[in-house]
Amino acid sequence: MSPWSAAQIGDARSTIDTPALILDLDAFERNLQRMAKALEGRKVRLRAHAKNHKCPEIALRQIALGAVGICCQKVSEASVFVQAGVTDILITNEVVGARKIDHLMELARQARMGVLVDHPLQVQALATAAQAQATALDVYIEIDVGGRRCGVASVDEAVRLAEQIVACPPLHFAGLQCYHGPAQHMRTHAERTAAIGSAANTARAVKLAIEARGIAVDIITGAGTGTFIHERDSGVFNEMQAGSYIFLDRDYGDNQRGADDIAFEHALFVLTTVMSRPTAERAVLDAGLKASSVDSGMPGVWQRKDLRYVKAADEHGVIETPNAAALALGEKLMLVPGHCDPTVNLYDTLVCVRGEKVEALWPIAARGALL
Amino acid sequence: MSPWSAAQIGDARSTIDTPALILDLDAFERNLQRMAKALEGRKVRLRAHAKNHKCPEIALRQIALGAVGICCQKVSEASVFVQAGVTDILITNEVVGARKIDHLMELARQARMGVLVDHPLQVQALATAAQAQATALDVYIEIDVGGRRCGVASVDEAVRLAEQIVACPPLHFAGLQCYHGPAQHMRTHAERTAAIGSAANTARAVKLAIEARGIAVDIITGAGTGTFIHERDSGVFNEMQAGSYIFLDRDYGDNQRGADDIAFEHALFVLTTVMSRPTAERAVLDAGLKASSVDSGMPGVWQRKDLRYVKAADEHGVIETPNAAALALGEKLMLVPGHCDPTVNLYDTLVCVRGEKVEALWPIAARGALL
Repeated sequence: MSPWSAAQIGDARSTIDTPALILDLDAFERNLQRMAKALEGRKVRLRAHAKNHKCPEIALRQIALGAVGICCQKVSEASVFVQAGVTDILITNEVVGARKIDHLMELARQARMGVLVDHPLQVQALATAAQAQATALDVYIEIDVGGRRCGVASVDEAVRLAEQIVACPPLHFAGLQCYHGPAQHMRTHAERTAAIGSAANTARAVKLAIEARGIAVDIITGAGTGTFIHERDSGVFNEMQAGSYIFLDRDYGDNQRGADDIAFEHALFVLTTVMSRPTAERAVLDAGLKASSVDSGMPGVWQRKDLRYVKAADEHGVIETPNAAALALGEKLMLVPGHCDPTVNLYDTLVCVRGEKVEALWPIAARGALL
Repeated sequence: MSPWSAAQIGDARSTIDTPALILDLDAFERNLQRMAKALEGRKVRLRAHAKNHKCPEIALRQIALGAVGICCQKVSEASVFVQAGVTDILITNEVVGARKIDHLMELARQARMGVLVDHPLQVQALATAAQAQATALDVYIEIDVGGRRCGVASVDEAVRLAEQIVACPPLHFAGLQCYHGPAQHMRTHAERTAAIGSAANTARAVKLAIEARGIAVDIITGAGTGTFIHERDSGVFNEMQAGSYIFLDRDYGDNQRGADDIAFEHALFVLTTVMSRPTAERAVLDAGLKASSVDSGMPGVWQRKDLRYVKAADEHGVIETPNAAALALGEKLMLVPGHCDPTVNLYDTLVCVRGEKVEALWPIAARGALL
């Protein structure tokens, strides 16, 4: 861990050391409000995903604004939020392995916990642990609605898993996980509409088939920042797992907005310094791929359309510009991360800025929680 | 930070929780010996790069085997190693900004510190700070020998910087930084030979031009794991900055070895679990891009040529194989990271394994040290 901090509370924004992960509090709070408004008066609840921010301060604000709880992706990640007082967490992932299941059961004694399954052996392992400890656990069946990652691919498999779960108290069959990952970054509104239309059809078919066996399917959960208006309006989904809406990374910003899409704004930035200016067309920043993840492309340069971040090395970002001489050595720039989740995971602290002041330092308490 | 550990000292390898970053101690120690042997009896010293491991336990072993000290890329990173007892560190980077320079000077009172420059304003800022505090500092001029990142591009600029540095005690002009990054992963021996031949010619020309002004150029430093045999044999370089040789990632493993290249072996792995097996051709691992960096391509699957890691999501790795049914749910696999530096930076601990036992847990103490 870095032996000193990029900033202290009360510092002027201009004195923040770099690279630093900056949260623009005004923009962040507007994004929180936009999501609350988008779901207001609808039969759809928010269970905000916390894998992107890993920050209890943010989760507690999402819940205060109406979220029923949060999603996590790892048991160790969930544990950080339980410690911080979050009482309702869905792990949107299969949990495999005895150590992990023990930890999950430990959490289920302190909070309402849910988990996914897509194989009978997972149900069996969860049931054995839950029965041994007489601990309730919500279990959701993951359906592959187009992501081609985890999740059962057929209605029959889903029905069999539901029957297996209801036969294993204290497991509680809670519903279906129907998240369509690739649809989040389909660039056009028409593509996203079609993808989620198809996902909703799949979800509906599985729900009806399970209900035909006399088993209630209470929750159909899924959706992300790119598509949630479609799940919200589908008549099938009743829980939204969007997370990135609080930050809006460059990749989400590149989606073409349709008339009904919500206009979230960029609130997360990597502050960086021009550290070298070796030629007339090249400048080098002190933020490379250890400061801003490049798995979804290079970061954007905030409000500087004349500058292109063209290449990231471990600790360097290369900027091309027709006039590098106009950039001063020591000048600070703001980057819009290509992908917020893995970028946040590189830092221990969010430097929260309002206007020209550092208002707060929020620990990214679940950073590196991989287990 | 993860609330519990993937393993304890003395655990059987088979019980390590996943994802975990594994160091195979036998392979690691063989790699240390191979490098020591490759430089034995030559007029070339090792200053091993520590940006890839960020681990004092490793730096101290490199120094015990003959390294004169280490390289770091960030001042905050160097601070972790100074605290751990390393007494000679070159920051192979320009340091720009008042806070950073203050921290650098603090370190220069505790250890021998070096730093790079490629602009007169950097020299001026360092000189002002060094004079104010009467603290010695080694200054190296970075030359662009083909990396097209930082570094002066002309002999004249280098000569002017050298004259400026020698006029500013207590700055000490120590030599030239001549690292050729892109050459490290040129796939053929012939390409690497040509690239470093050219880099050595540039370094020699700059050295002669500076010496012609009566200024000694003591150290020509550079080289990485992919090319160091060429710098070693160039007659110009006298200090090697290789770092990745201790781990050997997949990207380095993909280089075609020439007859004189050293056969380092993979010693760093990401241990992962098969957590879903949704179709006959697809399995999903619990190690995605938050567990193994993908900037230099996907990880390899160790000793399983039948398996291809084809896609990384944040927390999932997708494996394609003609026979997914042969992979058991819960089965553990070892990944060879695509790029060791940013992968190590995702973890707090190296789980050090010898044979079937966890022998040590080494803190990655400088993880996240970005400032």
